[in-house]
Amino acid sequence: MSSVFIDLGSRSYTIHIGRGLLASAGQIIKEVYPFISKAMVVTNPTVNSLYGHEVFNSLEEAGITPMLAEIPDGEEYKALSIAEGIYDLAYTAELDRKTPIIALGGGVVGDLAGFAAATYLRGVPFVQIPTTLLAQVDSSVGGKVAVNHPRGKNIIGAFYQPSVVMADLSTLKTLDQREMRAGMSEVIKYGVISDEKFFGWLEKNLERAMEQDSAVMENIVAVSCRIKAGVVQEDETEQGRRAILNFGHTVGHAVESLTGYGVYRHGEAVAVGMAAAARISEKMGLLDSRERQRLERLLNRAGLPVSVPVSLDRKDLISSMRRDKKVISSRLTFVIPEAIGRVRMVRDLDEGLIVSCL
Amino acid sequence: MSSVFIDLGSRSYTIHIGRGLLASAGQIIKEVYPFISKAMVVTNPTVNSLYGHEVFNSLEEAGITPMLAEIPDGEEYKALSIAEGIYDLAYTAELDRKTPIIALGGGVVGDLAGFAAATYLRGVPFVQIPTTLLAQVDSSVGGKVAVNHPRGKNIIGAFYQPSVVMADLSTLKTLDQREMRAGMSEVIKYGVISDEKFFGWLEKNLERAMEQDSAVMENIVAVSCRIKAGVVQEDETEQGRRAILNFGHTVGHAVESLTGYGVYRHGEAVAVGMAAAARISEKMGLLDSRERQRLERLLNRAGLPVSVPVSLDRKDLISSMRRDKKVISSRLTFVIPEAIGRVRMVRDLDEGLIVSCL
Repeated sequence: MSSVFIDLGSRSYTIHIGRGLLASAGQIIKEVYPFISKAMVVTNPTVNSLYGHEVFNSLEEAGITPMLAEIPDGEEYKALSIAEGIYDLAYTAELDRKTPIIALGGGVVGDLAGFAAATYLRGVPFVQIPTTLLAQVDSSVGGKVAVNHPRGKNIIGAFYQPSVVMADLSTLKTLDQREMRAGMSEVIKYGVISDEKFFGWLEKNLERAMEQDSAVMENIVAVSCRIKAGVVQEDETEQGRRAILNFGHTVGHAVESLTGYGVYRHGEAVAVGMAAAARISEKMGLLDSRERQRLERLLNRAGLPVSVPVSLDRKDLISSMRRDKKVISSRLTFVIPEAIGRVRMVRDLDEGLIVSCL
Repeated sequence: MSSVFIDLGSRSYTIHIGRGLLASAGQIIKEVYPFISKAMVVTNPTVNSLYGHEVFNSLEEAGITPMLAEIPDGEEYKALSIAEGIYDLAYTAELDRKTPIIALGGGVVGDLAGFAAATYLRGVPFVQIPTTLLAQVDSSVGGKVAVNHPRGKNIIGAFYQPSVVMADLSTLKTLDQREMRAGMSEVIKYGVISDEKFFGWLEKNLERAMEQDSAVMENIVAVSCRIKAGVVQEDETEQGRRAILNFGHTVGHAVESLTGYGVYRHGEAVAVGMAAAARISEKMGLLDSRERQRLERLLNRAGLPVSVPVSLDRKDLISSMRRDKKVISSRLTFVIPEAIGRVRMVRDLDEGLIVSCL
């Protein structure tokens, strides 16, 4: 068992990492909220059939009456209309301001349940039980919650911190290999943006990770959460430094958007974006070509793509990047690696240079 | 010209109070955001026809290109579907994270525009130009933003502070008497909850206020904002003390809800609620009957109602109060006056006692 403390003043919280945490969910929540008597669990049918029973039992044993809010499975349901369904259920169940909303599932469930928790009655307690690698290492740290707008991802949202997170590594067993790889993409990202030693450790342990060796997975989730926490603690609402977490995301989001969400997994698109950013950096003379190759090699070994599909029009990619919500005053900003373990931000890059690296 | 500084750490802001501020809107916003080149103004057709021109001119003179987001006039449009319309416009206009959303209007415009600002791209700058007395003394301080749920007021919302507020007293000239009275209800509330001297001053100056004497109105808005600021600074997200601002609101909300929104103005319902709370306090032996009469007399002089309509079923009123979003674990909580200038919270009141005072 590991734990990571996210230090955000009055909004601080702990991430518990280990096996068998689902069975302790009720007890852990009761430690944070000793006086609650009910909670609403947001999940989808797939996750519910796998883990709902265990979580509900654990809540009941702790004296917390659970209510179920099931949402359909898929990114297309991360929508305001589905959040409205949660508001309706919460209102009918007479949820008050002290009743937690618990997200049990991957990124979609976490983002949507988090947005509902952030906005219902101007904010109710929020608990995360992430069940995918991506959600455990990425969306459970940092407080970004959102729903999609018909024309763009995560356009409607908030910064809203959970009060406790439980990352149960046992839940990763039910992930298919593609989901594991997509999660690993963000893990590799953490090494590149701030920890060369962790990157080196990943190079040594990648195969054991893909086989879900317990000790290796625990270290992966804990170190990833710690790196992300370090960045978020410095810049909770993304005014500056937090932007380094977007390494690989500028191109990645454009690829996801132009191929239609669902063709590329988010992590796969980020892998493509990281490789592109590394090529840009190399071309600018900032990154040694061996370092760029080292990144591509690890992504390859993790079964992740590194090239932008030829079918995508380069002009469309550029204009999609310009519409990213992180763009200010239409100035394209890239996070590029200077070495494994260190990145910097560059602004107003030449479009020709970008296109030549896509 | 007066100004009130709201001290909330990194979320601090200034309320400017005076005549002719609309013409300086662009300049004042530019002082807060020197680098912006555009802004979105949310308003309704009535306010737009009165003041839109002046604000747009002022923005343009300051080098800020204004975009208009007009929403229909009325509480029933403080809805998620209207917020979605603002998101669409914002997306089409390529608003980025630094582009302010400006609320020009009363409470509905402020709450709705504020909710959109709080959630678009996880939060963009928010500027308030309140044009009603109620909005100037109440909704522009404290950061409560929200839309209504079909079954309850302000159920979906956030705490989100503006970056600057401009309360132009000239805009009050176009309010009808009923709106002035409704605003005065919250003004009187501030005297009762924390400032006997201000209450006494209001007793002396009420007629001059209703005639909109300049100096009197400036003092009313400034003192009201300062009192509310003092409370909000201590308890931004309503964990405790902030609840005293709900004096008159427990019964008030129930009256509004049961008569159907729009029959009673919010301030009128609050007046009914304040008088009821004073009767409860008197009956409990906590408030001197002369103090209760003093409150009723001032409310009467301001043309405000003090009794609960006989047509409303008392049982329905009680069960409506239980559903208020401030209720925790179904325990009815009342803010009651112990004297003019001092209130306290009481929990678990006897229902019979409440009913006998309605």
